[in-house]
Amino acid sequence: MAQKPSIPKGTRDFSPNEVERREYIIDIIKNRFQLYGFMPIETPSFENSETLLGKYGEEGDRLIFKILNNGEFLNKVPESDLVTKDESVITSQISDRALRYDLTVPFARYVVQHQNDIAFPFKRYQVQNVWRADRPQKGRFREFTQCDADVVGSDSLLQEVEFIKLFDDVYTDLGLKGCTIKINNRKVLAGIAEMMGAADKLIDFTVALDKLDKIGADAVKKEMLEKGIEAAAIEKLQPVFELSGDFEQKVAQMKKLLSQSEIGLQGITELETIKEKLAPLEMKMTHLDLDITLARGLNYYTGCIFEVAAPDGVSMGSISGGGRYDDLTGIFGMKDMSGVGISFGLDRIYLVLEELGLFPDSVKAGVQALFINFGETEASYCMEWMFRFRESGIKTELYPEPGKMKKQMTYADKNSIPYVILAGENEIKTGKLTLKHMKTGLQESLSPEDLLAKINTTF
Amino acid sequence: MAQKPSIPKGTRDFSPNEVERREYIIDIIKNRFQLYGFMPIETPSFENSETLLGKYGEEGDRLIFKILNNGEFLNKVPESDLVTKDESVITSQISDRALRYDLTVPFARYVVQHQNDIAFPFKRYQVQNVWRADRPQKGRFREFTQCDADVVGSDSLLQEVEFIKLFDDVYTDLGLKGCTIKINNRKVLAGIAEMMGAADKLIDFTVALDKLDKIGADAVKKEMLEKGIEAAAIEKLQPVFELSGDFEQKVAQMKKLLSQSEIGLQGITELETIKEKLAPLEMKMTHLDLDITLARGLNYYTGCIFEVAAPDGVSMGSISGGGRYDDLTGIFGMKDMSGVGISFGLDRIYLVLEELGLFPDSVKAGVQALFINFGETEASYCMEWMFRFRESGIKTELYPEPGKMKKQMTYADKNSIPYVILAGENEIKTGKLTLKHMKTGLQESLSPEDLLAKINTTF
Repeated sequence: MAQKPSIPKGTRDFSPNEVERREYIIDIIKNRFQLYGFMPIETPSFENSETLLGKYGEEGDRLIFKILNNGEFLNKVPESDLVTKDESVITSQISDRALRYDLTVPFARYVVQHQNDIAFPFKRYQVQNVWRADRPQKGRFREFTQCDADVVGSDSLLQEVEFIKLFDDVYTDLGLKGCTIKINNRKVLAGIAEMMGAADKLIDFTVALDKLDKIGADAVKKEMLEKGIEAAAIEKLQPVFELSGDFEQKVAQMKKLLSQSEIGLQGITELETIKEKLAPLEMKMTHLDLDITLARGLNYYTGCIFEVAAPDGVSMGSISGGGRYDDLTGIFGMKDMSGVGISFGLDRIYLVLEELGLFPDSVKAGVQALFINFGETEASYCMEWMFRFRESGIKTELYPEPGKMKKQMTYADKNSIPYVILAGENEIKTGKLTLKHMKTGLQESLSPEDLLAKINTTF
Repeated sequence: MAQKPSIPKGTRDFSPNEVERREYIIDIIKNRFQLYGFMPIETPSFENSETLLGKYGEEGDRLIFKILNNGEFLNKVPESDLVTKDESVITSQISDRALRYDLTVPFARYVVQHQNDIAFPFKRYQVQNVWRADRPQKGRFREFTQCDADVVGSDSLLQEVEFIKLFDDVYTDLGLKGCTIKINNRKVLAGIAEMMGAADKLIDFTVALDKLDKIGADAVKKEMLEKGIEAAAIEKLQPVFELSGDFEQKVAQMKKLLSQSEIGLQGITELETIKEKLAPLEMKMTHLDLDITLARGLNYYTGCIFEVAAPDGVSMGSISGGGRYDDLTGIFGMKDMSGVGISFGLDRIYLVLEELGLFPDSVKAGVQALFINFGETEASYCMEWMFRFRESGIKTELYPEPGKMKKQMTYADKNSIPYVILAGENEIKTGKLTLKHMKTGLQESLSPEDLLAKINTTF
């Protein structure tokens, strides 16, 4: 009967201090979302399969976790299908539902489904888990938490401006100095492809270009060749690889390069406008950088795209991302709703803050005061005070058994409980309590009221 | 391509106000859990199937959502199995993981897996979703949220005392008057079965007795007969059906009835002790009742069991429950760890508070101040103030497009935004802002600082 317990690959248990630290991050993000006027929604963990499938490309479809139908799920599957063992045929017959893969597609579904109850532009945030059957690695899990904010129903570039400032505010609140907010525009990418004469290969082109950071210019060119982009076309890319200078300088170079592409110039103008409107707003801990090679994988982006890179020296993929999509709700039959949104990757932000030691000491789970249990009479005496302490907001407990003093003190120690309170025969007689400061070992005898007041000031 | 969007049966979308109200309840419960010394943990949404299967009875196994293996999941299934279409054989071959069915079994798994890092007694709380493929009905969903607190590693009855007071504290914080905390003890039930000579039919007996409320004494007796309990034995139950009076009076009657059953008397003594230790603690909004017919479905309970019934007149099943289990971690190979815990059913508590109109008005999602957008120059002027407002903690936004005034005011109205701020040419010249109180329609001209101070005092 006994099993050696374990959890599935790519999933995690969170211990008390991990939960507290995760909530510390979430609270900061939520607070900023709310201050910026976003309202929370939540969607179900699983959706009907047709809501999710086909929205994330072939690779995405493979990585979506499917839920087996309940009951006699094989009943209606023709035997002729079964014996083929062809998963592409059988999966849809035995699975009607699938776990959420991101928060954006469910959000689009939500907007379309509830359109009559929504006052547009609709600004929503959503902090929920998503699941992907990806190969686990550092910063990549099969269950992880996304913190998304999106606006749907407004094509104003002010939204992009606000999202950039929102990134800065959140990372400032987290005390994370030195993140780079990379920005680019899908229209600029389209313009480059046009200029190269490879407009029909836009996706292959962006997928390859996106890897410039990781694999270098030569490998990128090689991949493009393999995808059928002509060598002459690829040569025209050289200035993009050599782009340098600050935001304005890069913009100037790109303007020249894209002078013949209407869509490309439109993208450049958007980037300029955003930069201009950002100027009066102080960026506190992050800085904005134009990264023409930034492509982002998801195909629904059509305008500006963002990605936030951790500070130099921290090896972690992007810790936030986002962008504008002109027609996300179109897949659910609601046309012409422009949307733009960003996503914070909680799990990666956690790893970065941990690596840099940026969690405040005050972010800690646990009991603040422990009453030692000397026996039934003493415990009853302590109980009354324990409840009074709790009413004052002190996280308090009474050791449940009248065990050995050493055991009880070890318990306090292991759980990092800062105050231990002793009430034996003597204390009950005098109406006092003995307070032991665990850090210093000091003990003092106090009236319960004074003791409470004393420790209350320290939290 | 267009699909009419919907969500799976038994699942729900939560709108902004629903999310805020759910979080209002969760925050109250979490706050009390923490004050009582519980620490948060979280476990993965899905577990290895063998962790969950066989832990909730046959019915439970059926209701667990199984996740289809990724990739070529049919590869290793013998064709001879496939053609049988026998789900009981094939499920385990194509599904290794399953969604969490409750929080207790994953907690037990957690304790065993992390036993070397835990200082016992371990008091944990956990607020997470669970999934059951149950038939949806009022207050019963396929995805719902449980808020659990458990202590493992202590058999002190003080835990039961504290849990009862915790119920009272939480329902008091929620302003929900008149809930009944029903208490019973599995040992008393065992004693009754013993006294009837039906100790071997304990489970059938308790399952039937549990229905007394709903179906009445005659139907309960009939079910017991059908399950093979003898008529003579069932006759001995009559005093249990006729039990009356207050807690102490019922205890006295049960003591007589169970005078020959050691285990039964032990259960009665436990109930008496708990009641006695509760005496000095004031119960504010709930009251405790001994309900000998209370059985609770889950078989792992061995001692005290609890259930909280909504106030009279509210038709809702139990809104909280719990109990003591002497050997939950035993199934994972860790013996002799007594545990006791309770669970708040968030979704049902929500429905009860809604029905009784108990959500405070202040629990509301949404923007507090909206800047009207009169055009590019005005918007830039407003932007600066918008960010200052946000820094002061006011949830503020600027309408993204310079649209018709009427459209912008409708937006404010539909989103119940209490303050609208106007800054046109005139305001920019004089350095003032116009504040419109949406409730009264009043407008006043103020300096931005005064305006900010004014609305800041109202939140």
